[in-house]
Amino acid sequence: MQADFAELTSKLASGDTRALARAITLVENEQPGFARLLESLDVKNTPVIGFTGAPGAGKSSLVNAVVDHLEREGKKIAVLMIDPSSPFNRGAFLGDRLRMAGHFLSQNVFMRSMATRGSMGGLAPKVFEVADVLKAAPYDYILIETVGIGQSETEIAALADTTVLVLTPEAGDDIQTSKSGVMEIADIYVVNKADREGADTMYRNLAELSHRHATTNWEIPVIKTVATQDKGIDLLLDAIAAHMKTNHLPARRLRLLAAKAGMMIRALKTRNLDDARIEEALKAATDEPDFNLYRFVKTFAG
Amino acid sequence: MQADFAELTSKLASGDTRALARAITLVENEQPGFARLLESLDVKNTPVIGFTGAPGAGKSSLVNAVVDHLEREGKKIAVLMIDPSSPFNRGAFLGDRLRMAGHFLSQNVFMRSMATRGSMGGLAPKVFEVADVLKAAPYDYILIETVGIGQSETEIAALADTTVLVLTPEAGDDIQTSKSGVMEIADIYVVNKADREGADTMYRNLAELSHRHATTNWEIPVIKTVATQDKGIDLLLDAIAAHMKTNHLPARRLRLLAAKAGMMIRALKTRNLDDARIEEALKAATDEPDFNLYRFVKTFAG
Repeated sequence: MQADFAELTSKLASGDTRALARAITLVENEQPGFARLLESLDVKNTPVIGFTGAPGAGKSSLVNAVVDHLEREGKKIAVLMIDPSSPFNRGAFLGDRLRMAGHFLSQNVFMRSMATRGSMGGLAPKVFEVADVLKAAPYDYILIETVGIGQSETEIAALADTTVLVLTPEAGDDIQTSKSGVMEIADIYVVNKADREGADTMYRNLAELSHRHATTNWEIPVIKTVATQDKGIDLLLDAIAAHMKTNHLPARRLRLLAAKAGMMIRALKTRNLDDARIEEALKAATDEPDFNLYRFVKTFAG
Repeated sequence: MQADFAELTSKLASGDTRALARAITLVENEQPGFARLLESLDVKNTPVIGFTGAPGAGKSSLVNAVVDHLEREGKKIAVLMIDPSSPFNRGAFLGDRLRMAGHFLSQNVFMRSMATRGSMGGLAPKVFEVADVLKAAPYDYILIETVGIGQSETEIAALADTTVLVLTPEAGDDIQTSKSGVMEIADIYVVNKADREGADTMYRNLAELSHRHATTNWEIPVIKTVATQDKGIDLLLDAIAAHMKTNHLPARRLRLLAAKAGMMIRALKTRNLDDARIEEALKAATDEPDFNLYRFVKTFAG
């Protein structure tokens, strides 16, 4: 088994996409030994670009166009599409996948979709692990696309080095009423479908918003694109490259890593604490005449 | 300090309401030694009755009437009013408190309001602890009243032996669209303000709903009351007494205790795990050439 993983790890590290797909499936489904596989990976600092935004904003077309550009530069790209498993989005998502089908033939582009439970805190842990498997493979960029509903928007930002928020000229209300914090977590704003009416107003509003919230490190650039016509993609790639060069990235990565490690350590420390076991111990303890819950807890926690 | 707590504990156990109020404040504000105080309490199995329902259903009037009845029977009652700290409800809540002012003069009724953060998972832990302090005092019943908004409705059910859901004849839509699970967690349905139009329809609908979901242990009784005119309170008290006698109560209490203990044990086990400390350790570890997050986590968790 151990030897098996060594082979799998070295194969995926050398660019074998079958090995990569197998490793992801293993981790995604928590098949036996998946934890050991993760421990054996050589996880590199592959740049991760996240794309988020409301359904219909054109995220998939934009990712598609970005992949095209990077591929032409001779880069190898892995794309992870997060499917929040909502019945409302499945149709559109399948459509998006078909639109990306052109890349399936390319040796330099690996694509994988991933269903997530979509429930509270559901996205992060598994996506994190799958992203780590991708980082152990020889890709120049990892692109993560998520349908922006609720929490997943902010969770993707916790995963990506650079988060691109994709908006349309009509998204004015979204910005005004945004409560999910997505405007705050984005590193780059894109006004996609910028050939539509209202694009300039949208652009100005975003630029003003961005300027108001600028830090010494970074003022969120606003990029106009028409992804389906391949317009504005160069500017977007420049903005991404500029953001990747800012000096706050190592600190952000460390913070992100610490948050993830904390989550994992807490889970490990409380692993065998199922309520059935606690209930069993309590049942005996409550028979004692001087039972006290607070003392019980202290003793049980050791 | 220890001696101090011994005195406080014995005073509140003997019915000293000043000592009780002081102990609650100590626990509520997590003043030094509050954990030791909780450990020193002799927490009894005082019956806890929870009252929940939408604002305007007349919960406070109903609690008021129930307190009146129990007091006339010579019982000692503690009332805990949970204030979810929402600006929308504060006004009504203060009004309710004034209506209950008559009881402030009674030796046999202890009243206390408690503000909760109202945020995710905010209600349970602190209310649990304060309820335990009340259970260490010599009361025959503890009544907990909460404004039914969101989570607090189901959380009160996790705290009470018997949960009374207070509805009005006009609450038809609430029942149809109820997503919070409050219809499921209630043990008794009350149609308050039953002198209003629609009370009989409401009664029949609830009775049908209850009958459909009846178990071998319990079919949720539906009680019509007009709390402000003291009507139907006897029937409600009979229903509460009947529910307290059902044989599923010990199992429910144990389950509840186990859930609470689990929460506390997990918190204890991960107490010193702040992200800053993890980040510090990570910073050093990531400098190693063969750093792997999954191995780091395993080592750190010990």
